[in-house]
Amino acid sequence: MATEIERKFLVKPEEWQQFQQRSDPTLLSSTRYRQGYISSSVSKTVRIRVAGDRGFITIKGPTVGYSRSEFEYSIPLADAEAMLDQLCEPPLIEKTRHRVAWDNLVWEVDEFAGENQGLMVAEVELSDTNQAITLPDWVGEEVSDDPRYFNASLAKHPYSRW
Amino acid sequence: MATEIERKFLVKPEEWQQFQQRSDPTLLSSTRYRQGYISSSVSKTVRIRVAGDRGFITIKGPTVGYSRSEFEYSIPLADAEAMLDQLCEPPLIEKTRHRVAWDNLVWEVDEFAGENQGLMVAEVELSDTNQAITLPDWVGEEVSDDPRYFNASLAKHPYSRW
Repeated sequence: MATEIERKFLVKPEEWQQFQQRSDPTLLSSTRYRQGYISSSVSKTVRIRVAGDRGFITIKGPTVGYSRSEFEYSIPLADAEAMLDQLCEPPLIEKTRHRVAWDNLVWEVDEFAGENQGLMVAEVELSDTNQAITLPDWVGEEVSDDPRYFNASLAKHPYSRW
Repeated sequence: MATEIERKFLVKPEEWQQFQQRSDPTLLSSTRYRQGYISSSVSKTVRIRVAGDRGFITIKGPTVGYSRSEFEYSIPLADAEAMLDQLCEPPLIEKTRHRVAWDNLVWEVDEFAGENQGLMVAEVELSDTNQAITLPDWVGEEVSDDPRYFNASLAKHPYSRW
């Protein structure tokens, strides 16, 4: 089991585009994600994810402040794809995750596609809930506490229908 | 992914006891199980199980006739125990599973404890839905189609409260 401590922010599209055009070496990777939920409630979620060519199942407990218990296991790609297609309620979440090094932390910038096209969200994982962080200039409003931006919520109420 | 084709029967306690007293070599193993559900609905379940000293997570799709899609992964024992305690609704299912060879098939006889004490159920896995089987003398009424005997149901409505 891991405990995930995360803060989440909206991304300013123009500043992000400028940042990318600098072709800065801090862009570590860009990976296509496809994910869905076997079940999701306020207190726990069971997520199936295909990241690039790898499959995962992830169980998360209730969110308390910025932190949440998390259990993640690698599974065969074919199993992940079968569960996404047969057991997860559509729409699936489709996004490209860019990993960016910034001020000794790794930011994950999610550029959504499909039914959540137009949404961009940046997350940073912290080692404790009081850790001070420097925000890159492409980071906007904080939405850590806004349940609409939970991926499980975006699968039920996608951004394009807000 | 596997497809599970199973038939399920009640066990006649006296005949089962006599069978065990013969100390027949067909008794392959007896293992203590503790399991619970992260989520369960008619169409899918996410089960956490500790079997002896091993942990598992199992996702099952909807039951169609005798068959059901199943995805099972081995996970660390400590993770399974943490999820049973933190994420599964009590009561947990406690039982001892006896595996018995009979007429070229392996029967699993579940002797329930805790809130399902008194219940004994035998399951046999088949290779196709029309396979003919010989019933041991300790096998009683068939309950394959009775949702009360699904383990996910027994976690919500234990036998002791019927």
